[in-house]
Amino acid sequence: MVSPAVACPSVPLTQDDLKKIAAYKAVENVKSGMVVGLGTGSTAKHAVDRIAQLMRQGKLKDIIGIPTSRKTHEQAVSLGIPLSDLDSHPVVDLAIDGADEVDPGLNLVKGRGGSLLREKMVESASKKFIVIVDESKLVKYVGGSGLAMPVEVIPFCWNHSLKRLVSLFADAGCVGELRKCVETGKAFVTDNGNYIIDLYFEKDMGDLNKASDLILRLPGIVEHGMFLGLATSLIVAGVEGITVKTKTGNELEVDSFCYTDLRNGF
Amino acid sequence: MVSPAVACPSVPLTQDDLKKIAAYKAVENVKSGMVVGLGTGSTAKHAVDRIAQLMRQGKLKDIIGIPTSRKTHEQAVSLGIPLSDLDSHPVVDLAIDGADEVDPGLNLVKGRGGSLLREKMVESASKKFIVIVDESKLVKYVGGSGLAMPVEVIPFCWNHSLKRLVSLFADAGCVGELRKCVETGKAFVTDNGNYIIDLYFEKDMGDLNKASDLILRLPGIVEHGMFLGLATSLIVAGVEGITVKTKTGNELEVDSFCYTDLRNGF
Repeated sequence: MVSPAVACPSVPLTQDDLKKIAAYKAVENVKSGMVVGLGTGSTAKHAVDRIAQLMRQGKLKDIIGIPTSRKTHEQAVSLGIPLSDLDSHPVVDLAIDGADEVDPGLNLVKGRGGSLLREKMVESASKKFIVIVDESKLVKYVGGSGLAMPVEVIPFCWNHSLKRLVSLFADAGCVGELRKCVETGKAFVTDNGNYIIDLYFEKDMGDLNKASDLILRLPGIVEHGMFLGLATSLIVAGVEGITVKTKTGNELEVDSFCYTDLRNGF
Repeated sequence: MVSPAVACPSVPLTQDDLKKIAAYKAVENVKSGMVVGLGTGSTAKHAVDRIAQLMRQGKLKDIIGIPTSRKTHEQAVSLGIPLSDLDSHPVVDLAIDGADEVDPGLNLVKGRGGSLLREKMVESASKKFIVIVDESKLVKYVGGSGLAMPVEVIPFCWNHSLKRLVSLFADAGCVGELRKCVETGKAFVTDNGNYIIDLYFEKDMGDLNKASDLILRLPGIVEHGMFLGLATSLIVAGVEGITVKTKTGNELEVDSFCYTDLRNGF
């Protein structure tokens, strides 16, 4: 079913409010006894907080969290969520995480926060993966925000890897740069001890699966920030309401909710 | 041109002699002024020694070596070979390296020594890549020796990665195990701080390019030890003589030399 967004009375909401709304809506899908992938970033943080809140209230029991970064691990520990990892729990019932970009086919760019590899490991092991964003993250095509598409590379000869990456996408006006720590000016180091090359595209790079394989075939590349075909649902919080898109086979089912309908939920 | 192996009078040669013969033959292709990829392992070591010897004799000048491992870096420094890296010299004129397996199409398995990633970075940046082996390394198909095909993985949830790798090749009777240091019993750590999963195959895995993409698409995998389509020449030293196979387009040109013909060269 495809329905247009429902017009709702406007509510004065900040971007952080929207992130929280999307996160809380997603956590409605968490049931007692589930193994849950816990995302990383400012939106996913709200989901982790909400899960912990429902556990404290006794509304959720026997939850096992699989954190996608050291940062989320610390947050979950501080909130008392029992944690495990993919070695012990190779199948995750549900993962909830934010994204930096979402295209109309639910392909994502993630990793501007630097945790793309562990996120991808957890989310590709999940039966369901709900992506939660505010509406500023929607793009016409991957790379379309003009912001970075991150690629995790081994530190050895990173500049060589950068040049090879950029040359793959010369036709899409690609440029790249090594990510640096703002505080130190030194190379940003991931949880896995690697570097990040940020790629920027002037134009649509075309076939994403082909682009993914071209990147992964370069030796020295560990992973990229495109999450293709992994998301099973998308929850978008906009100023007027929430839109939920769910994959059903090759179709996308779209539902929209006005905030007045949801008021009791928050 | 395809010619059968030339029958030669047998010479009492050890396996190490054969490795040395292949290495010396390959170094005939090194010319003054070249940027040369320096391989890793017991066969490649002879090539590095030979290059240094010819430099000392004044027969090779202005060589720049690109080492493929920390070990080779140390060897080359001790021999006085000037070194650089791919960041400064992104195009390598010629690489010379050994292999653990070579199939009839010049596809290789490398990395039993643990240096597969840096080797692949250097050798995929080389205009020519000469593989040097003794005849024990020839196999009918990749994995056919029954010895390991190594895969470099990030340490995070390596056991999960192992299971996912093995499940890709269930039809080929694949089993896998984490490589450990013989001395310490702890996980072997690569030059890049990663682990190695050794895969073993009972049967031919089939389409190698497809297998490569399946492996590389798993998050948590850094690189695998199959070198597909990278070798431009193969030098095989057997007990009766040397066989040189060279790619010319889609064809393989094969030449054979009897040791009596070569005696003056050593």
